Amino acid sequence: MQDKPATRLYVEDDLAAGRTLGLDHTRAHYLRHVLRLEAGAAVALFNGRDGEWEARIDGFGKGWCSLTVGECRRPQNRERDLWLVFAPIKRARIDFLAEKATELGVTALRPVFTRFTAVTRVNTDRLFANAVEAAEQAERLSVPRVFEPVSLEDLLADWPAERRLLVCAEAGPARPIAAALGEIARDPAAGFEPWAVLTGPEGGFARSELDGLAKLPFVTAVGLGPRVLRADTAALAALACWQAILGDGEDRPPVRSFS
Amino acid sequence: MQDKPATRLYVEDDLAAGRTLGLDHTRAHYLRHVLRLEAGAAVALFNGRDGEWEARIDGFGKGWCSLTVGECRRPQNRERDLWLVFAPIKRARIDFLAEKATELGVTALRPVFTRFTAVTRVNTDRLFANAVEAAEQAERLSVPRVFEPVSLEDLLADWPAERRLLVCAEAGPARPIAAALGEIARDPAAGFEPWAVLTGPEGGFARSELDGLAKLPFVTAVGLGPRVLRADTAALAALACWQAILGDGEDRPPVRSFS
Repeated sequence: MQDKPATRLYVEDDLAAGRTLGLDHTRAHYLRHVLRLEAGAAVALFNGRDGEWEARIDGFGKGWCSLTVGECRRPQNRERDLWLVFAPIKRARIDFLAEKATELGVTALRPVFTRFTAVTRVNTDRLFANAVEAAEQAERLSVPRVFEPVSLEDLLADWPAERRLLVCAEAGPARPIAAALGEIARDPAAGFEPWAVLTGPEGGFARSELDGLAKLPFVTAVGLGPRVLRADTAALAALACWQAILGDGEDRPPVRSFS
Repeated sequence: MQDKPATRLYVEDDLAAGRTLGLDHTRAHYLRHVLRLEAGAAVALFNGRDGEWEARIDGFGKGWCSLTVGECRRPQNRERDLWLVFAPIKRARIDFLAEKATELGVTALRPVFTRFTAVTRVNTDRLFANAVEAAEQAERLSVPRVFEPVSLEDLLADWPAERRLLVCAEAGPARPIAAALGEIARDPAAGFEPWAVLTGPEGGFARSELDGLAKLPFVTAVGLGPRVLRADTAALAALACWQAILGDGEDRPPVRSFS
């Protein structure tokens, strides 16, 4: 059993013992008026680089909060490099997708416009805010990077050759996801290669898109069973299977106290 | 390419060629005023027993719609028997969970009150309505049964001995989910046994609950990686892995037309 601060916050500042840092208005308000914390209260901080640190609230002012960093609680870990490349979907579902994909350990969220993508604008700030909140809750030590949207064509033209791409194909030739990933998992380096999962929009991929993807050397097209999954469900199912079979599914959460 | 009605509806009536059936006010309104369908338009019907049938709208009246059943389009399939047993969570998330679990093929949704479950009432009609809508969208031929909530104690006291239970354990001893399910999958009967996935509330299981579960002969406790997942995420991740490794992950959706 570990005595731990209940509140975890992502910050951009460097973290080291004795450093003092400030929080912006939104987060200061949250600590003071939502969580009703007072000077002296402990929170945990992480920035994606320096591990997790305990910090104490020095005090609040008008629209700010000052914290002093204490001890390191967890060292930074090495995460599997897994992007989620996804056709953007409408607002409530994209919020949800950003949250769940962060919980499932993606290191980047990359919106991509495909032929049948109906959504034309993506609020990347909002995606990032959802990812931050999810990372704080999930005891992650990092927050996924959020890329600006690009077309599928441009994405593939610039694709880094060493990054493998798992395409969730609701139609056309595809292998069952567990068989495809299970075979790849027999190579001990597999989970440490960079990977990405690609999911289409609600209308699915165009046949020409799936045909084009199938020809690329870094692509593995997989099926997710007999039901037609919504775009967000397909993404989550593929990410969950990837982590379980190729990723960090063997690791356990940091020790939590039992009540 | 298959010419298919875009609208699928779950009905309770028996389905056979030539039968006439009526829809209630809500669904009649949906067809007439949301989808703007007219007499003569085709829809697809399923009831969880008789497969999927094409039907034509005979006409609309005040608060009703009459349909005549035509040809059978898909025979009823045999589904893997997989319950989701879950501590109820708050409203938006429970709607979402019912939707996603239905897409992922559960045959029953069983709310269960655990020691740290904060939600005290469950609207099972609402859960069922969410499941119906998800089944219609997912091209499923059935809708999961929704049970009334019971306590974990009562659930386990009446547990059918032949049904295996996959417990998502965020703490305590547990095997990685892919390893545990992969080992079970080597038994050819495994996917055809009845199974259930159990997930706890936002506060997690009490240690005494996890200890008690671990002693039961039908329980396999599994871990889902190093991140602390929200209750809904844990359920979806476990269901996705179960279907991929032990379930119907090798099957493909019915042929869809490409635009």
